[in-house]
Amino acid sequence: MVHSFITGGAGFIGSSLADRLLAEGRRVTVYDNFSTGQERFLENAIGHPHFHLVHGDTLESDLLTRSMADCQEVFHLAANADVRFGLDHPRKDLEQNTLATFNVLEAMRKNGIKSVAFASTGSVYGEPEVFPTPEDAPFPIQTSMYAASKLAGEALIQAYCEGYGFAGYIFRFVSILGERYSHGHVFDFSKQLGQDPSRLQILGDGAQRKSYLYIQDCLDAVLLAMEARPQGVNIFNLGTAEYCQVTQSVEWICQTLRVSPKLSFTGGQRGWVGDSPFIFLDCSRIRALGWKPKLNIEEAVKRTARYIKENSWLLEAR
Amino acid sequence: MVHSFITGGAGFIGSSLADRLLAEGRRVTVYDNFSTGQERFLENAIGHPHFHLVHGDTLESDLLTRSMADCQEVFHLAANADVRFGLDHPRKDLEQNTLATFNVLEAMRKNGIKSVAFASTGSVYGEPEVFPTPEDAPFPIQTSMYAASKLAGEALIQAYCEGYGFAGYIFRFVSILGERYSHGHVFDFSKQLGQDPSRLQILGDGAQRKSYLYIQDCLDAVLLAMEARPQGVNIFNLGTAEYCQVTQSVEWICQTLRVSPKLSFTGGQRGWVGDSPFIFLDCSRIRALGWKPKLNIEEAVKRTARYIKENSWLLEAR
Repeated sequence: MVHSFITGGAGFIGSSLADRLLAEGRRVTVYDNFSTGQERFLENAIGHPHFHLVHGDTLESDLLTRSMADCQEVFHLAANADVRFGLDHPRKDLEQNTLATFNVLEAMRKNGIKSVAFASTGSVYGEPEVFPTPEDAPFPIQTSMYAASKLAGEALIQAYCEGYGFAGYIFRFVSILGERYSHGHVFDFSKQLGQDPSRLQILGDGAQRKSYLYIQDCLDAVLLAMEARPQGVNIFNLGTAEYCQVTQSVEWICQTLRVSPKLSFTGGQRGWVGDSPFIFLDCSRIRALGWKPKLNIEEAVKRTARYIKENSWLLEAR
Repeated sequence: MVHSFITGGAGFIGSSLADRLLAEGRRVTVYDNFSTGQERFLENAIGHPHFHLVHGDTLESDLLTRSMADCQEVFHLAANADVRFGLDHPRKDLEQNTLATFNVLEAMRKNGIKSVAFASTGSVYGEPEVFPTPEDAPFPIQTSMYAASKLAGEALIQAYCEGYGFAGYIFRFVSILGERYSHGHVFDFSKQLGQDPSRLQILGDGAQRKSYLYIQDCLDAVLLAMEARPQGVNIFNLGTAEYCQVTQSVEWICQTLRVSPKLSFTGGQRGWVGDSPFIFLDCSRIRALGWKPKLNIEEAVKRTARYIKENSWLLEAR
C-alpha cells in the first residue's frame, strides 16, 4: 500500500487531496501546523484506518524527518499563501516557502523518498509577455516575495532531481477554487458582503484578468501527471483554457449570493504591489496527457460562493 | 563621495573591484569572512584612507546591518562558489547564497540603501537549448545546488526591486579569469601540474565547451551597467563572444607553463553531476551599452596561468 505524506494536509488543497488518496486506497500522513489549516477539513479523513495526523511545522526538521519515515512520496503543499502581504514580513515567505521546501527535500533524502509533488504558482511568470503563458516562457522577472520564494522552491527541487535522482512534479497553479476554499478574492468578497451586502470594495480597477481552476480538476491533473511521468523534472501549468475579469467574477458571486452591492474600486491596474494584472496559462502540456477540467471558471466561482455561504464558520475561522 | 559596500570584498572579484572603486575616488567598505578571501588581495586597498575592512559573515545579520550604515550602494559578491561540491553539503549553498542574499537585502532596507549589484551565474540557464543563450532564454531548469541558490538570490532581488523600489543589477557571469583568480579549472590544472608536470587528469571527456571572461573586462561591464541603468531590475549576461573546449584551454595552460603532460580523462559529457557541457552566453545587451571585452579567452587563460605560476602561494592557501 502506497503511503503518501502531505505537508499542509489540513488546508484547502491538502485536505481535499487526503480524501482522494484515502479513497484510492493509499495510506496518508498529513503534516500541518494548523496556522491556516482546519481540523474540520479532516473530518472525513480522521476516522479512516489508514490516516495519520501530525501537528508539526515544516521548520521543525527533526519532527518532519521522523514523521516521514515509511512514506514513499511527498506532496509538499504547506506554504505561506498570503500573496498580498509579502512586503509586510519578507522573512515569512523565505522561511515558510523556501526554507520549508529545503527541509522537506532533506527529510526525504534522509528517508530515501524520491518522489515529490510541489504546489508552485503561475505567479512565477511575473508579468509575462506571452499569453497564454507556457511552461517554457521567456525567463521571467519576479514581482512578489511569494513568487520569488516559490521559484526558489522549484529550483531546489530541480537540483535535487539532477543531483539525487529525485522525481519532481512542479505544478504552477492558477488560483484554485471549490469546497474548503478559504482565502482569496471570493473569500474576501463574501466576507465583505456578509458584513454589508449593499457595498463592495474591489482592489485595483477591477479589469484585472485572472484564471481559476476547480479543486477536483486540479487534483485530477496532479494525480494523472504523477502517474504518467515517473521520473526527472516535470513541470505543469494547471488552469482552464480561459480567464475572467475581476468584475465578471464579482457579478457571478453577487448572482449566487443574491445581492446587488454598490461597487467601489481602489483603482490602478494592480490590486496591490506585485499583483499580476493578467494571468492566463497555457495548459497544453497537461492536456496532452488526456486531462480536461470538468468545470469552467464561472461554475467554479459560483460553486465556491455557494460553498462559503453554506459554511460561514470559515469566514470567522481566519 | 559615494560609499560602496562589497560583500566578499577580499575575494578574487571583490578585491579587484575594491581597487577599482578606490581608484575612481569612492569610499569602500569590504565585508568578508575570509573563508576563501585573502588578506594579500587587499594589500593595495588597506593603506588607502577611504578603505574600511570588516571581518564578518553574511549570516551575521546584525553586524552586516551595522557595517553597512553610511553606504549608498552594495556589491553583493560573497558566495559559496564551490559549484562541484554542492551535493556533499546542500545546506551550504542555501545558507551562503540564498539566505546571505536575503540578509544583505534586509540590511540594505534597514539602512535605506536601494542599489545592489549581484554576482549571479550563467549556470542559472541549466542546460539551455538556445546558444548563445540570451537573458530571456526559455524558463530554465536548474541542475545544481549552486545555480538553484543563485537563482533564488536573483528572485529575491527582483522582488525587492518591485516591492521596495530597489535598483538591482544582476550579472550572470561566465567563469571569470585573471589576477587573483583562485578557484576553477586553471587553478586545479596548475595545482596538478605543480605536483607532477608529466600528467594531467581532466574531469569529463574534455570536450565540454566553456566560456571565460577577464576580470577587468568584467568590472568594466559591471560599472558601466550601473551607470547606464539607474533603476529597476537590470539583468546582464557577461562573457566574450566565443567559447573554448576544455582541451583547448589545457593546451594554452600547458604552453604557458611549458609542460607536456600525458592527459587522462574521467569520461562522460559532464565533469561532475550538474556540470553544464556547454556554456555560451549572448552578451548583446551589455554590448549595446558600448562595452567590449579587451581580452579574448585565449589571452585570459594564458594570463591566468602565468599569474598562478608567479603566485604559487595561492596554490597552498586553499
